Amino acid sequence: MLYQNFFYSPQADALFSDKATIGYMLQFESALAQAQAKHGMIPQACADIIYNNCVIENIDIQLLISQVGLGGNACIPLVKQLTNVVKKQNTEAAGYVHFGATSQDVIDTATILQAKDAIILIQKDLDKVINQLQILSENHQKTLMIGRSFMQQARPITFGYKVDTWIDGLTRAKERIERILQDCFVVQLGGAVGNKSAFGEYGDNISESLATILQLKNSKLSWHTQRDRIVEIASVLGILIGSISKIAKDISLLMQTEIGEVFESSEEGKGGSSTMPHKRNPVACIAILANAQRIPNLVATMLSCMTQDHERATGQWHAEWETFSQIIQLTGGALHQAVNLTNGLEVNILNMSKNMEATNGLIYAESVSLALSKFIGKSEAHQFVEKNCREAVRQGVHLKEYLSSQEIIKKYFSKEVFEKLFL
Amino acid sequence: MLYQNFFYSPQADALFSDKATIGYMLQFESALAQAQAKHGMIPQACADIIYNNCVIENIDIQLLISQVGLGGNACIPLVKQLTNVVKKQNTEAAGYVHFGATSQDVIDTATILQAKDAIILIQKDLDKVINQLQILSENHQKTLMIGRSFMQQARPITFGYKVDTWIDGLTRAKERIERILQDCFVVQLGGAVGNKSAFGEYGDNISESLATILQLKNSKLSWHTQRDRIVEIASVLGILIGSISKIAKDISLLMQTEIGEVFESSEEGKGGSSTMPHKRNPVACIAILANAQRIPNLVATMLSCMTQDHERATGQWHAEWETFSQIIQLTGGALHQAVNLTNGLEVNILNMSKNMEATNGLIYAESVSLALSKFIGKSEAHQFVEKNCREAVRQGVHLKEYLSSQEIIKKYFSKEVFEKLFL
Amino acid sequence: MLYQNFFYSPQADALFSDKATIGYMLQFESALAQAQAKHGMIPQACADIIYNNCVIENIDIQLLISQVGLGGNACIPLVKQLTNVVKKQNTEAAGYVHFGATSQDVIDTATILQAKDAIILIQKDLDKVINQLQILSENHQKTLMIGRSFMQQARPITFGYKVDTWIDGLTRAKERIERILQDCFVVQLGGAVGNKSAFGEYGDNISESLATILQLKNSKLSWHTQRDRIVEIASVLGILIGSISKIAKDISLLMQTEIGEVFESSEEGKGGSSTMPHKRNPVACIAILANAQRIPNLVATMLSCMTQDHERATGQWHAEWETFSQIIQLTGGALHQAVNLTNGLEVNILNMSKNMEATNGLIYAESVSLALSKFIGKSEAHQFVEKNCREAVRQGVHLKEYLSSQEIIKKYFSKEVFEKLFL
Amino acid sequence: MLYQNFFYSPQADALFSDKATIGYMLQFESALAQAQAKHGMIPQACADIIYNNCVIENIDIQLLISQVGLGGNACIPLVKQLTNVVKKQNTEAAGYVHFGATSQDVIDTATILQAKDAIILIQKDLDKVINQLQILSENHQKTLMIGRSFMQQARPITFGYKVDTWIDGLTRAKERIERILQDCFVVQLGGAVGNKSAFGEYGDNISESLATILQLKNSKLSWHTQRDRIVEIASVLGILIGSISKIAKDISLLMQTEIGEVFESSEEGKGGSSTMPHKRNPVACIAILANAQRIPNLVATMLSCMTQDHERATGQWHAEWETFSQIIQLTGGALHQAVNLTNGLEVNILNMSKNMEATNGLIYAESVSLALSKFIGKSEAHQFVEKNCREAVRQGVHLKEYLSSQEIIKKYFSKEVFEKLFL
Repeated sequence: MLYQNFFYSPQADALFSDKATIGYMLQFESALAQAQAKHGMIPQACADIIYNNCVIENIDIQLLISQVGLGGNACIPLVKQLTNVVKKQNTEAAGYVHFGATSQDVIDTATILQAKDAIILIQKDLDKVINQLQILSENHQKTLMIGRSFMQQARPITFGYKVDTWIDGLTRAKERIERILQDCFVVQLGGAVGNKSAFGEYGDNISESLATILQLKNSKLSWHTQRDRIVEIASVLGILIGSISKIAKDISLLMQTEIGEVFESSEEGKGGSSTMPHKRNPVACIAILANAQRIPNLVATMLSCMTQDHERATGQWHAEWETFSQIIQLTGGALHQAVNLTNGLEVNILNMSKNMEATNGLIYAESVSLALSKFIGKSEAHQFVEKNCREAVRQGVHLKEYLSSQEIIKKYFSKEVFEKLFL
Repeated sequence: MLYQNFFYSPQADALFSDKATIGYMLQFESALAQAQAKHGMIPQACADIIYNNCVIENIDIQLLISQVGLGGNACIPLVKQLTNVVKKQNTEAAGYVHFGATSQDVIDTATILQAKDAIILIQKDLDKVINQLQILSENHQKTLMIGRSFMQQARPITFGYKVDTWIDGLTRAKERIERILQDCFVVQLGGAVGNKSAFGEYGDNISESLATILQLKNSKLSWHTQRDRIVEIASVLGILIGSISKIAKDISLLMQTEIGEVFESSEEGKGGSSTMPHKRNPVACIAILANAQRIPNLVATMLSCMTQDHERATGQWHAEWETFSQIIQLTGGALHQAVNLTNGLEVNILNMSKNMEATNGLIYAESVSLALSKFIGKSEAHQFVEKNCREAVRQGVHLKEYLSSQEIIKKYFSKEVFEKLFL
Repeated sequence: MLYQNFFYSPQADALFSDKATIGYMLQFESALAQAQAKHGMIPQACADIIYNNCVIENIDIQLLISQVGLGGNACIPLVKQLTNVVKKQNTEAAGYVHFGATSQDVIDTATILQAKDAIILIQKDLDKVINQLQILSENHQKTLMIGRSFMQQARPITFGYKVDTWIDGLTRAKERIERILQDCFVVQLGGAVGNKSAFGEYGDNISESLATILQLKNSKLSWHTQRDRIVEIASVLGILIGSISKIAKDISLLMQTEIGEVFESSEEGKGGSSTMPHKRNPVACIAILANAQRIPNLVATMLSCMTQDHERATGQWHAEWETFSQIIQLTGGALHQAVNLTNGLEVNILNMSKNMEATNGLIYAESVSLALSKFIGKSEAHQFVEKNCREAVRQGVHLKEYLSSQEIIKKYFSKEVFEKLFL
Repeated sequence: MLYQNFFYSPQADALFSDKATIGYMLQFESALAQAQAKHGMIPQACADIIYNNCVIENIDIQLLISQVGLGGNACIPLVKQLTNVVKKQNTEAAGYVHFGATSQDVIDTATILQAKDAIILIQKDLDKVINQLQILSENHQKTLMIGRSFMQQARPITFGYKVDTWIDGLTRAKERIERILQDCFVVQLGGAVGNKSAFGEYGDNISESLATILQLKNSKLSWHTQRDRIVEIASVLGILIGSISKIAKDISLLMQTEIGEVFESSEEGKGGSSTMPHKRNPVACIAILANAQRIPNLVATMLSCMTQDHERATGQWHAEWETFSQIIQLTGGALHQAVNLTNGLEVNILNMSKNMEATNGLIYAESVSLALSKFIGKSEAHQFVEKNCREAVRQGVHLKEYLSSQEIIKKYFSKEVFEKLFL
């Protein structure tokens, strides 16, 4: 995949190869046989033969892919191949492959297993990002910089504060991921119309054992057309990426040539332009921002797919497949880039300080106004400061200098107190 | 609003009128003054004057609306009017209106208050829907109907089971709403760049008291450009509507003239067609399905708005305003319609039973196959049944009748056991 | 509507009031009667009575709104009221109100009439924007500024060139609007199942005459569930807004305090911050960017609504109603703001010039490299320049100054030629 | 790719392999050199060497992929490899590889070339679909079936009419594709900041020649951040898929077991269920509906990406890459399935006829009412028919039979005329 090292995380992506995807489906089939044997639905010996044959080497992946179009999913040709393989060893066991299950049981459970593995990787990357930001925050609790609203200089903040707000969103994202790992990764087992009828009296027990084997949560009812949990996973990732992209947006703005306050770490060959030596392209930011541009609409697709018909949906389920994978993979990629981005951020304190002087002190006008209001009332103070700002601008003088000669200032503020208003 | 009685819930909508919206903003201003007085930031007497004047009657709404364009939000002209009103009573108090706060503090907190009131209404409607469905489920635990996959008849289920799967999704939606009511409804107070600097040493205390007065959760850090919680509210509603729309989809399909298994309650003038007397239009379903078509993409807008710049965002915040309201209002409307829809659903058991005969018994083929596999193995059983199905179809005979004369069936099944396979 | 002067254009919005919307529906009913009379389907006298009564004053709008929920659209209660009014004058004529038409005929045609009027307003605003930009372009064909890629200073352009690229997109948007005004504004007339059967042999003629009266294009086939033309209108507006928002994005970036190259016109009270006197908030940009954040997902809803069932859709049509209006209204608002934005843009040539010096001449490195490559080959030139850039940066010297003392430069360039490389 | 034979068209997909994508980029580089040589910007001999080396065999694709992350696009490592290869033959020529161009010139032009090839395939499939539907329409101009509104039986139509409405949307889609093939497939050539400055005085000529060589349209101005044409391509495909999906929606509904009027062609192994022999899954419909669920939101991403910054966008361009490919590939897949779907559709005239009897004649009530209104006025006629419908339903009698014994019917209609009302 051309952009696998830019929009994606190679490690997370490996979980989504055709081979890996089929592997998750085989996990289901082998666990199902075990669970059924445990509750006496099929002979243990048959289950063992099935178990032993649920290995990717037994599957001709290209053949499988060529047959997906006929039945409309990847499970039908997989079961066909698996059954043939098992049959060569034992005819009876072949009869128990995928016994009583429906394609959606396999595909949904495989998807959940796959998503879980990927999200655990994402979780680790998120932890790294948070840790790296926490160190950054600690180092810059006193680093003054300008706060900006609507991209206009507003009033001073510290860079540590800015980083704290980044961490704040990520911390909640982390809690959301922990919660969905508890709640949303459930096994799917229902059979043709979802009611476990093909499993007879042992349906619930088999489902329970299947969940245990696969280390998933059990779901009392099958969720063939009740997609809220899988959509919740998608939306939690969407929100996470929103918080990540806010950081990338800030840094890409701070990296502007004219601002130059924070930079992605420079690395040999990274982000440079051979013909424009001064450029430091925000490459990691770009990858994150690009993914953040795409994920919200993929989440919308997941939400819109919830309007499913009857016991198995006509297209809405199928639209989920690649969409859900893409959300996870793009999230994985964004986190991977975020780890790089927040590792070795270069903070240019000099430029932060220099930029704060860009308005010749006007960013401190509110401080003066607030301090003065205690003496002469808010409106009076406001009018006084406003008038003096205009005049300072007209004369091209720094506000501090201009105000320091005004009587009203001298009357109410000592030099020390006055100076503090400009910090 | 032309469609207020179709896509919307009048009760929830009332919370979103201009007047109500401004009222929530006034709640913020009055609570802020009280919180500031409590911690000695402003005189209690001034706070009381402000409190007394924070009434909607003091505001010229049309004038306010006409001025929104200048500053780019509704708070600036509101504060201007409020200050003028207070000033007429007390100049000093006027100086403390909106003291140290920024427009976004007011608008975000007002939005949260408004959303909370609306979601509590939605929660009540959701409870009603669940209760109504539970009664329906109890009444139909044994009502057989056909389960359908890809809109094809598959195998029998009970209508009670179908309703149980509907309830299942809604129960989790209910839990999600309870959770966000705990977690996501937080006060916004940060001042110009979010760091509460204008509130001096008492910032955190004032925020805490403000939250208490407004019965919201406090937020240690302001969330001017960290929008995950408000987006989480939006996505939880989006998921809820997904589950509601699944019900509407099912019922609209079941109401098809040729199927006729379940109907929206008929009401004088509702859903009828004057020129087509036989029609029973699924009016409530239509409203729900229409809203469910729109909400996912509104949630996508909320997600995409998270990529915010610096301390206050240039457009992404503003894009949230009407989008967030619309999500809540359309959700409110869908729930309102769902209450009607699930109240008095007409279930036509006769048609359910009749439709199960549409395939001349083929829907029972799997039962026979599974039962037979215990004796002759899965593959043999499958091939036998498949061949006999084809033959039964060719002769136009009911599968039960056709099979009953086959030797292999007679050999392994008593008449009683065989008949049970067709239930 | 709280934000009618911010996100919306009051003039365009007026076309979308409930009253105006109902007025368009009445236009359909009166024109239908006339068209039917012309072809002898109903008596001319009856048509005239209907025509005379199709006035908004005859309609109790609140009553109508209260009944929309029953039948699921606004046409049913409108026809009821209109019929009653006509009946008071003439029973026979009452029988011919809405004769043979279906609700969707009325609502779709009214929507198209409404959209056409609004888009003509949008077209006018677009013309204004283009004209204003053309003047700006002419004035600044030689105004040098830095071009930026990935928000990094890259190489010089002229501001005139930048404006030309803005105009380029808008010119194509203008052509698209002209095209859809020709192609997509078609009358809807089909009756219950769209095949004009209720109009007997005169169906096509009546449709043709109806189109003529309403100054719309005729549609041979009704388009009740073929929505491509209305979605094309939506997507053309979506693309237009994309091009408009690109301008707003650029200007909001250029207005950054640290860059200060271009500003929205200042107006008393507009965009200012009372507490931060130096701020010049990009208010018009914000409104445009906010609308541009919302419209793409509304267009997605329109696209997704195309998957309609049979002869009249179960919800997908209904989801279009408010969505389509919102797209037009938000587009109208964005254009309205764009007219203001591009009228009186302040261009700060001094800052443009100053910012070009921010890299100490590195932005000219490629010019030098290209010029030098003619003499010593591209790779050699590139390496030479790269090395010298690094050194100039290290010493904090302007690239021009640094290079001017290098032998290789002196060898191949006269002073005049060399100086030109830095323009 | 697991689902390449389900959601995708293998033929179209082949154009989007990494190898093919890089091939299109090489096409650009070779054509650029030729165009530059033609206008004397580089020596013809060098251009020829470049031309000869622009072959995919010269590129180590895996190496290229591994380096995409550094510079943030696939062009940088490609040019690096290509330059090295050329250098081995001729140092001077190596200096002219990619001369004056920027990565975006290459990637955008390659994307346009790729899209053009794919859309020509889509166009062919669309022609096939239209042709197949035209034959179907001709065969069924007189095949009566019920028209349905809101999935309720409404009034009769012919199947030919239904197919005509399908063709209607597709015909306009075909015209749109022809138009964009004329207008939107333009070459990209601008250099670092889009103004062709690196090409000196020959910029426009080189661009013109480049376009000629590549059989694309020339673009006077570069469109690095003016994305309307590429988004127009995306939206035209989105609208096409909307019209295709409407057909799939109809057919999937008509295939319902209880309706059974139209079926996808059956093919060995296609759409069947081994355990449910009666099922005929709408496999092609499902693939189309799934793609149609996804494409609208991908188009929204394209629209949202138009808000680009300055001369090269920070992420919005990058988000287009895979999104645009996916739109084309999913459209290609949907068309491929549509060719299969409309080839060999089975029409069950018997069921169409049978279903028309489902309401016991009520679907003809409006015909009677309209006919009767000529004699006794519309209201009277309406009331009469309504009352008699109710009574016919109550007695379980066919409306025709019930009405035939009514005096008022006998008075105004001959037996022949009356019978015709029920056709």
